[in-house]
Amino acid sequence: MQKKVEISKVDENFKINNQDNKNLKWINPKNSNLVKVYGLNWFYKDFRYHRFPKETDETIKNLSGSLDVLTANTSGGSIAFYSNTKTLKIKVKLSYMFHMGHMPYTGQAGFDLYLGKSFNELKFYRSSNFDFNNYEYEFTFFENAEINDINLHMLNFPLYASVDEVLIGIDEDATIYSEENLFPNSGKIVFYGTSITQGGCASRPGSSYTQVVARHLGYECLNFGFSGNGKGQIEVAEILSKIENVKMFVLNYEANVYFDQLKQTVWNFIAKLRETYPTVPIILMSKIRFFDENHFASVKKTEHMIRTYQRNVVKKLSQTDNNIYYYDGSKLLGSDFEEKTVDGVHPNDYGFYSIAKVVEKFIAKKL
Amino acid sequence: MQKKVEISKVDENFKINNQDNKNLKWINPKNSNLVKVYGLNWFYKDFRYHRFPKETDETIKNLSGSLDVLTANTSGGSIAFYSNTKTLKIKVKLSYMFHMGHMPYTGQAGFDLYLGKSFNELKFYRSSNFDFNNYEYEFTFFENAEINDINLHMLNFPLYASVDEVLIGIDEDATIYSEENLFPNSGKIVFYGTSITQGGCASRPGSSYTQVVARHLGYECLNFGFSGNGKGQIEVAEILSKIENVKMFVLNYEANVYFDQLKQTVWNFIAKLRETYPTVPIILMSKIRFFDENHFASVKKTEHMIRTYQRNVVKKLSQTDNNIYYYDGSKLLGSDFEEKTVDGVHPNDYGFYSIAKVVEKFIAKKL
Repeated sequence: MQKKVEISKVDENFKINNQDNKNLKWINPKNSNLVKVYGLNWFYKDFRYHRFPKETDETIKNLSGSLDVLTANTSGGSIAFYSNTKTLKIKVKLSYMFHMGHMPYTGQAGFDLYLGKSFNELKFYRSSNFDFNNYEYEFTFFENAEINDINLHMLNFPLYASVDEVLIGIDEDATIYSEENLFPNSGKIVFYGTSITQGGCASRPGSSYTQVVARHLGYECLNFGFSGNGKGQIEVAEILSKIENVKMFVLNYEANVYFDQLKQTVWNFIAKLRETYPTVPIILMSKIRFFDENHFASVKKTEHMIRTYQRNVVKKLSQTDNNIYYYDGSKLLGSDFEEKTVDGVHPNDYGFYSIAKVVEKFIAKKL
Repeated sequence: MQKKVEISKVDENFKINNQDNKNLKWINPKNSNLVKVYGLNWFYKDFRYHRFPKETDETIKNLSGSLDVLTANTSGGSIAFYSNTKTLKIKVKLSYMFHMGHMPYTGQAGFDLYLGKSFNELKFYRSSNFDFNNYEYEFTFFENAEINDINLHMLNFPLYASVDEVLIGIDEDATIYSEENLFPNSGKIVFYGTSITQGGCASRPGSSYTQVVARHLGYECLNFGFSGNGKGQIEVAEILSKIENVKMFVLNYEANVYFDQLKQTVWNFIAKLRETYPTVPIILMSKIRFFDENHFASVKKTEHMIRTYQRNVVKKLSQTDNNIYYYDGSKLLGSDFEEKTVDGVHPNDYGFYSIAKVVEKFIAKKL
């Protein structure tokens, strides 16, 4: 017997919030300088919410796999602005989402809001929940008369969906102005990797470890995690090498390649980045521990071998390169690592915070 | 433009795992003593996966709200057995699930597996992911020739769904026997409360804080969290008071009632439990901090008042009752509490672990 029961009728805390009872002004980041987009490096060139520049579309489409689909995911993107608005809504139009069972829609296709007087005071407010049967949604973050002061608003983009349009709705009479330098520190940290880098399976965008690192270290972090498709292709290295003002590269793609593929790609990938950035720190980070390593001796042995290989890559390169480092990914989740994944593979929010806390310390030392 | 993209084609780590290439024996807990069900107190009386006894169905149905729907959710339930099987599958038939956007299906309607030589060595293995468009699913936890020894298996039931049937599939030639006393310590800890108590929005059943406490303290924990419906009804206290061998009651229902309702119910609720259990420890736990308390002074003030009220209830009762305690829920998420929810209200897995670690220390002292 299947009964259809609406959670919002059972528990009003689970209601999806989308009243529409006020006149608002709607701001489109694509044609307004009142808000600013961060974390999507070519946004102000192509005016689309993609992770790669338009000029590389053909190259990426010709690669095997689904990189072309994933580059259109918005992981790592944010919108920031100052305002004293007492109302904040968004209207979102997605071109697709993945409908995965082990990642909530708030993380896959929702936005989340951080709010505070300044960057250093930003605190999580709430995430957008919506009827995920639709590809268009409206969500009210707040409607609160108590707000008087100017706040910094930071809205994080979805991790596993493509956004065609997002409109920001504020009170008609509210003050709003853009934040030209959201991150206190100059330069970009470029993360390249897998589904885990992309943010699978964070419960909301701000929990993804690259976003946590961005908030904690105060650097813009560009997310080039490509679920199942972080395969170390030289075409990708070429694109990453063209990003301007890079402060550091963090490479963490082991989980997406067979050992042979890793051996075939890692040297050239690093060499390509070095052509443009001869001295910027590069961290080669191995895989976190998956459930099978915990339970099966044969897996543990294989993982040890692949980690050792990466350690040796760095050792070898270090002979002529003073700015390359190895980080042992098996340490990222700490001692109770088996509690920090959703499915034995992808971190839950506990896992993402653990990764962030560990890796940001290492990053900070090497910057 | 909406494109339909299957995540399993993009990233094979996201594949739903349900091969069917072996002869298995299928065990139904309702008619086999090879496995044992824990955490659903009346299972061996009614042989259904409910949280309340069948004899109270009419009473519960007549209450306002949706308690009747939620008592049929399986939060807190587990199946345990020993086996050396090299294959473990489940077949599940749900009568409903809620399809919430801010909680993954692995938590809402999936099972998760803990595996180890003994209770104290149990470690998370993985959770069942499935096609959530269907109400019946099959999932393969493992098919691994490397397994030779007898392992303890603990499968946690879904947190926000109703299970009509679950069948356990193991190798035909495997040894299997039941665990008659899964929990090292005797007696049950009874948790009563809200969606947060029920486990919303944990990424998998084993992340719910009552399940974490059960594993860490080694007591069977009965979960009577009722999303939006933990309203302190005397009929519920009556049912809870009839549970045998209770070691402790933890009451945490503030978030589901208005202040007036709390004042009207809390005294009688506790008094009812005291009729059967005059000296068993009772902890009255106030609400965790929600996002609005962090951002709005008026909310902070109200919350402070309601917490003070509960503290005073305990103070008053303590004059004649040596086993009643107040616990300040605002401390459950620690200092970075704003990062520990999915939506500003419901804990993510980081939040649930924080709650568990804090509350289990307090519980252990009072047991």
